[in-house]
Amino acid sequence: MRAETNKQATANEESLLRIFTVPEAPDSTLGRIEQEISQNLNGFLSEHLVAKEHKLSEIEKDFSDAQLPEEPQFVSDHTSFLLDKLVAQSVHTSSPSFIGHMTSALPYFMLPMSKIMIALNQNLVKIETSKAFTPLERQVLGMMHNLVYGGASSFYQEYMHSEQFSLGAFCSGGTIANVTALWVARNNLFKPSGNFKGVAQSGLYKALLHYGYKGAAVLVSERGHYSLAKSADLLGIGREDVIAIPTDANNRVDIDKLRSTAKQLRDNGIAILAMVGVAGTTETGNIDPLAEMAAVASEVGCHFHVDAAWGGSTLFSHKYASLLAGIELADSVTIDAHKQMYVPMGAGIVLFKDPSLAGHIEHHAEYVLRKGSKDLGSHTLEGSRPGMAMLVFASMNILGRKGYQLLIDRSIEQARYFAELINQQDDFELVSHPELCLLTYRYVPAPLKAILRSGNQVLISQVNEYLDDLTKYVQKRQREAGKSFVSRTRINPSIYQGQSITVFRVVLANPLTTQQILQDVLQEQRELAQTSQIALPMLMKMLAQWQAA
Amino acid sequence: MRAETNKQATANEESLLRIFTVPEAPDSTLGRIEQEISQNLNGFLSEHLVAKEHKLSEIEKDFSDAQLPEEPQFVSDHTSFLLDKLVAQSVHTSSPSFIGHMTSALPYFMLPMSKIMIALNQNLVKIETSKAFTPLERQVLGMMHNLVYGGASSFYQEYMHSEQFSLGAFCSGGTIANVTALWVARNNLFKPSGNFKGVAQSGLYKALLHYGYKGAAVLVSERGHYSLAKSADLLGIGREDVIAIPTDANNRVDIDKLRSTAKQLRDNGIAILAMVGVAGTTETGNIDPLAEMAAVASEVGCHFHVDAAWGGSTLFSHKYASLLAGIELADSVTIDAHKQMYVPMGAGIVLFKDPSLAGHIEHHAEYVLRKGSKDLGSHTLEGSRPGMAMLVFASMNILGRKGYQLLIDRSIEQARYFAELINQQDDFELVSHPELCLLTYRYVPAPLKAILRSGNQVLISQVNEYLDDLTKYVQKRQREAGKSFVSRTRINPSIYQGQSITVFRVVLANPLTTQQILQDVLQEQRELAQTSQIALPMLMKMLAQWQAA
Repeated sequence: MRAETNKQATANEESLLRIFTVPEAPDSTLGRIEQEISQNLNGFLSEHLVAKEHKLSEIEKDFSDAQLPEEPQFVSDHTSFLLDKLVAQSVHTSSPSFIGHMTSALPYFMLPMSKIMIALNQNLVKIETSKAFTPLERQVLGMMHNLVYGGASSFYQEYMHSEQFSLGAFCSGGTIANVTALWVARNNLFKPSGNFKGVAQSGLYKALLHYGYKGAAVLVSERGHYSLAKSADLLGIGREDVIAIPTDANNRVDIDKLRSTAKQLRDNGIAILAMVGVAGTTETGNIDPLAEMAAVASEVGCHFHVDAAWGGSTLFSHKYASLLAGIELADSVTIDAHKQMYVPMGAGIVLFKDPSLAGHIEHHAEYVLRKGSKDLGSHTLEGSRPGMAMLVFASMNILGRKGYQLLIDRSIEQARYFAELINQQDDFELVSHPELCLLTYRYVPAPLKAILRSGNQVLISQVNEYLDDLTKYVQKRQREAGKSFVSRTRINPSIYQGQSITVFRVVLANPLTTQQILQDVLQEQRELAQTSQIALPMLMKMLAQWQAA
Repeated sequence: MRAETNKQATANEESLLRIFTVPEAPDSTLGRIEQEISQNLNGFLSEHLVAKEHKLSEIEKDFSDAQLPEEPQFVSDHTSFLLDKLVAQSVHTSSPSFIGHMTSALPYFMLPMSKIMIALNQNLVKIETSKAFTPLERQVLGMMHNLVYGGASSFYQEYMHSEQFSLGAFCSGGTIANVTALWVARNNLFKPSGNFKGVAQSGLYKALLHYGYKGAAVLVSERGHYSLAKSADLLGIGREDVIAIPTDANNRVDIDKLRSTAKQLRDNGIAILAMVGVAGTTETGNIDPLAEMAAVASEVGCHFHVDAAWGGSTLFSHKYASLLAGIELADSVTIDAHKQMYVPMGAGIVLFKDPSLAGHIEHHAEYVLRKGSKDLGSHTLEGSRPGMAMLVFASMNILGRKGYQLLIDRSIEQARYFAELINQQDDFELVSHPELCLLTYRYVPAPLKAILRSGNQVLISQVNEYLDDLTKYVQKRQREAGKSFVSRTRINPSIYQGQSITVFRVVLANPLTTQQILQDVLQEQRELAQTSQIALPMLMKMLAQWQAA
């Protein structure tokens, strides 16, 4: 009996060891799926992803058991479950008609490349678990630094592989990149001085006491990304000390107000930790006047960070790079490779103009990151990290700068086409013009357009409120129908005197999106709007009476 | 001429679009590599990874150009480059003789699963870009919460899918998980009260003024992970306010000193932000007395966090889970699925006992994370995130709890075997006994052992310094030879009165590591030690004279 049990245990152990050694057979369920994905990704996704949206509450039923499964399960059985319940109900982010967010299609070589990366399972925190991946990541940071700052080749020779310096840091995403930039700025501002050991060692309370400030502020336009408030919370600055500077009609920061606000804060005993330029804004895709901001930051003597998480890849285009003129004056820049660099999710990058800046967040430990080592982990917020740099590297080499330019140019021109198309419609309103490949608009029944231009603020405000509901209604129905997807947001365009309105938001990053698809999107929205139960005829009648009165 | 240029531009664009639609041919270079990996990962890695270490300065030469490539490159050419220069020089983390760090082999099904995940390219920040992945991630958090806290099924029914609550958060790794836990603890400690809007809104300076403290401290044993000091820096607490509490001979926090230090800090006007229990320590693999720590934290009334980034998976084993007794009393717990849950890099998890705790870091935005939505991003430090939860889910289902138990038990028992083996050698010294699957030891030439036990502190100290150099020498040569790999660290074991010594550090998480491999590792180290130029005979002679005198 005892021998039997032992025999069983050994058999279990042997079968367990096999899952670390024996590959999936090509004719197994998982093997077949993998081949299907390799041979025809779009086909696989179109076939397996259910277009029509299931209710979230329905989907949740399939993921409702918090019990740990006690027994092992056959890989093929579990794969079937995932295919039916997870894959089928996931979002077709690479569909050409999914134009609502910044997640787009991937070049096909990304899949096998990713597989190599995952098979190698390197940990970039230290050389001992990443070897050649460390110089590779440093080179990618050098290339991106070069893209933004265009340093001399002697500069990169000196700093790129030096253990004492850092041209930037890979991060899981733009949020960590922004946090890292502001962390560096904070630690530099409140550096050691005299008896004070610096904010890194002694904390923010003692820092403010030592330097004689009542607080520290981050200045960014009201269009700044929500990760900046999150950073300020995290860093102990406080969300209310992220000061939202008003924008002009083009969603760009008002430079005069930026300057006067900085002065006023200073006069009130508040240190200016950083100014943050946005290139482009998440909601409207506009770019702050970076060169002018840099000048103000320089006057004030504060850190200038540019959040180019989304727009940074525009620098690959010789045609449109000038839209970001002044970015080379920033002390730090955030760029997400998983946005318009077409790399899978998880590839944020922060760059530092001055390679010694990251020294303000340097840290060491006994078993890794020893002083003098070239371990990347001594200058990153994160610890263990995967080798995503390989995917950015491969993409930059395979596409080349010219390849990226083609993609960037195409997306911007596609957005301009769509803006024009919207302008041609009687019953749509373009709300923000595309500067990059992002624009916002809404459906406005033709008769209401006249009222919106009537100058009667009470009426306009009432119509806008009605349209908010209509936009929300259409966006939800469109998403649920699953044929196409746009997102929605709320902005306060100057033509409506700062009144917040709900708009459709479109990002045209997918190179497979055609003009026909864009035409179809408008037609679908028009039809959906007409199914709205929101009482349009009644509203029209009421408004007519009001006008007559 | 003009027509020609346009024609060329169109051709370029078409070939570019193809990389988003046409898959890699099976007989292409990349296609072949992918198949090779699928069919025989270990074979692929053994064949392509060069065992003998190249000098880092040599490798850097292949990654030295910061210039962006202007022209596109054939996928096959670039793949060949990556194979020769990157893959060949990367670290064979899944080799059974790579026993120096926590990165281990992956079950084979992880590769195709990862490929599906990357092909879907979901963004977990919001439901609109992740749909079923959101309930899936919530379920995985529920399962992990259940593993740690074992709540009733009604508890999970109520909280798992509720938009107002959060059982935890997925993170890129243990560092972000620890930061998140301490962020939550800080914001809870300095919550809104009276006129004070809370630290999240108003920052740490005003928080301390309002609550009448001079600082805030995090208490953790001197074996705590370096990410805790990094967290304190980030959160504005300051690194020097991470108070290192001494440990006993088994590297466990001294409970009396923990209690008295907390009292003393309080008396000095310092708030206790959190106590952090370690399960297990990165350098020695030991586990703090968690239940006793919880009791002290409860007396003090502070947040109790357990950093079980590495040891947490022990909970899957009914045989060894009791080593972590008391973890269920923690307010928050960090577990890394990319460590002993055998998931690829990038899967950290933080869990909250009280599902309302994450409310202290809740945030919203207009275009995502709208109030009332179930978007996961409203309670995470990171923004855009990949669907790593799928891999944790698949692994828990395919291995089952019993499968994990087999892996955990085997690794602990392997470590015990290795400890015994070391003890049997005349010329090795076991420095820290394995509590989990991690141990430290060093090579000590037999004659020196007697001196180490002589009681002569001057001599012992001198021998230890010599051994530090020897250990470092052996560890480096072994790594360079590429046959096997152990890491090294510095610890201060009580038998040497707190003197820091350098030791080999071994983590036995790879189920494919055999007893033979462990025997070979010792033999290799013995032989390497004998090649040392560090003048052993002279030292021996000198010590003999000293003893005689």
